[in-house]
Amino acid sequence: MSTFQVELKKVVDDSYEIEVGYELQEKLIEDIKNGLVGKIRKFAVVTDSIVKPLYAERIYRMLLLAGYQAELIDFLAGEESKTRQVKEYVEDTMLAKGFRRDCCIIAVGGGVVTDLAGFVAGTFGRGVPFINYATTLLAAADASVGGKTAVDTPLATNLIGLFNQPEKVYIDIATWKTLPKRQLSSGLAETIKHACLANYEFFEYLSKNIEKVFENDDAVCRKIAHENCRIKYQVVMKDERESGLREVLNLGHTVGRAIETVSGYRLLHGEAVAIGLVAAARMSEKFGYCTAEEAERVTALLDRACLPTQIPEYINREELVKKLYTDKKVKNGQLRFVLQKGIGSIVQIGENDFARPVSEEEAREVILAMK
Amino acid sequence: MSTFQVELKKVVDDSYEIEVGYELQEKLIEDIKNGLVGKIRKFAVVTDSIVKPLYAERIYRMLLLAGYQAELIDFLAGEESKTRQVKEYVEDTMLAKGFRRDCCIIAVGGGVVTDLAGFVAGTFGRGVPFINYATTLLAAADASVGGKTAVDTPLATNLIGLFNQPEKVYIDIATWKTLPKRQLSSGLAETIKHACLANYEFFEYLSKNIEKVFENDDAVCRKIAHENCRIKYQVVMKDERESGLREVLNLGHTVGRAIETVSGYRLLHGEAVAIGLVAAARMSEKFGYCTAEEAERVTALLDRACLPTQIPEYINREELVKKLYTDKKVKNGQLRFVLQKGIGSIVQIGENDFARPVSEEEAREVILAMK
Repeated sequence: MSTFQVELKKVVDDSYEIEVGYELQEKLIEDIKNGLVGKIRKFAVVTDSIVKPLYAERIYRMLLLAGYQAELIDFLAGEESKTRQVKEYVEDTMLAKGFRRDCCIIAVGGGVVTDLAGFVAGTFGRGVPFINYATTLLAAADASVGGKTAVDTPLATNLIGLFNQPEKVYIDIATWKTLPKRQLSSGLAETIKHACLANYEFFEYLSKNIEKVFENDDAVCRKIAHENCRIKYQVVMKDERESGLREVLNLGHTVGRAIETVSGYRLLHGEAVAIGLVAAARMSEKFGYCTAEEAERVTALLDRACLPTQIPEYINREELVKKLYTDKKVKNGQLRFVLQKGIGSIVQIGENDFARPVSEEEAREVILAMK
Repeated sequence: MSTFQVELKKVVDDSYEIEVGYELQEKLIEDIKNGLVGKIRKFAVVTDSIVKPLYAERIYRMLLLAGYQAELIDFLAGEESKTRQVKEYVEDTMLAKGFRRDCCIIAVGGGVVTDLAGFVAGTFGRGVPFINYATTLLAAADASVGGKTAVDTPLATNLIGLFNQPEKVYIDIATWKTLPKRQLSSGLAETIKHACLANYEFFEYLSKNIEKVFENDDAVCRKIAHENCRIKYQVVMKDERESGLREVLNLGHTVGRAIETVSGYRLLHGEAVAIGLVAAARMSEKFGYCTAEEAERVTALLDRACLPTQIPEYINREELVKKLYTDKKVKNGQLRFVLQKGIGSIVQIGENDFARPVSEEEAREVILAMK
């Protein structure tokens, strides 16, 4: 028997910049001209059917005008498009248009577009660079930091994908104006989650200013975009591969994801998370990690963001309790909840452990109390 | 306008071991027991319809016997299975069997199996570990080092995939006994290529011993497995992302790939490469990089490995010349060939440049002379 050692140790630098601003299309083209992706001259602008006429077509035309080769590839808007089939469609379109390895993908849209296009970029020609141009608050809060890309399959959500970092992220807060109010609120749920788990001052700021988001107030939108990135970055940077700390981002998601599923996706993700955040705050209160007043402040802020804070009538409570067991944090059949300590920090259970074991009875009590 | 810097610089260690030996199934199970993939207890053994009864079933049963959870997933043998559809089939089977992130894939087979299974592993749960158990000489020569995984699409070969390094590679030379002779010869073409481009002593060794491969001579097979890994590793290590040096592995592949396509895949890859190696040697001779005698020695060695050294009658020469332009090395419409300097080294054209510009007329002359 004999062996041969392959040494592959190296330093990888996946650092990138997030730019927050108002109408960043021109800045994007300027950055490309200044070498953001080296000498690449061929771009696939990937978007969905809603964002295409609003923002993507303009970027596509500006690329052509600047003398680059570009193709505009779009698919039907909605979570239903986050599939391997749509990934294939984007790949085949790129191949048919003559794209090979020396190209760059520009994702223009919300989370579905950035998740899918980032995944395409990771496997096209064994990896080509990509740029995210985020056009929703949710994408700004969620898809800009962390490098998670994925598609859904009939049997699992987000389970086929890659960790893949973009060359740069643009958060264009001008695009939030065209978001339906329900979508904007949905994005605010993740924003409030970030404040609850990491930053009391930000929670105070939101308490003073949250209505201004709906007026597209420049300063408030910028502040929100920044804080979302900063908080998520602090967490993700310390735990890129989801070993422990990253669990704190699951605040509100144990009940949230279960409600989302049981509702048959009648609730948007952020709406379900809002209800889940209330449940987590109540659970925290129950275990003495926060006061009733603090839990009430969380509920009130979600309410002002036009988010639901009660479990809808049509949800079967027992079905919901059962669904909790499909949570990724379940360990040896034991439910585990991320809980908040006051407002602005998280309960730590052990080294690298941020999810507290909760009995089914305790979970049921909290859920039944949420009329 | 305001920006936010995401710092993601880190040291990545993708090092792994290649083990060469005779019947390594027990060693594999032992390694797993000793923590090769940590605490993982769930294994997907991915294989093809030919290798399944020969070697994969045994590994699957040994895993069960050792108390691990295991599933055996196979697909139809052949390059036609290297598709996104078969990748989906493997993923869906894994998901249906309850596989999530805490699993490991063991690829048992030749290049198609290791390419496909390595790609599945790279995107399942955003990356799970995988182990290659190579059962062909070609996989030993080609798929063990380099980390290339991929599938084919109707419009492009190997263009959708990933660089993904295995946890360990096993080269079981006992499996070469069950290879059809034509397949074994095909693997020898890549072996002779390696000798021509990097190691004169190895070329001499092959000249003395090549027939013994067909008798499954233990020492000769081991030596061949080792030298293939060593030479490919030296090249790949210096150029993991194919910027320049890695081009030398394309010796014989400019004409080889063109013949493979024009033959409508009647020729195996290695057979086409053998003819391509003769063409490259003749081209090297034409430009004075090697002697007629050296070119003749290359041809004679390929011949003794039972490989074709002439362009088959049924190949249209002009179609072949045209097809050369689809080669990846073509730059600004100019053909470029990797050429050998004597036997055992490569002609260097410039810094990071190992492909010599060749006019269509020069290429045509060499091809027409290969009766």
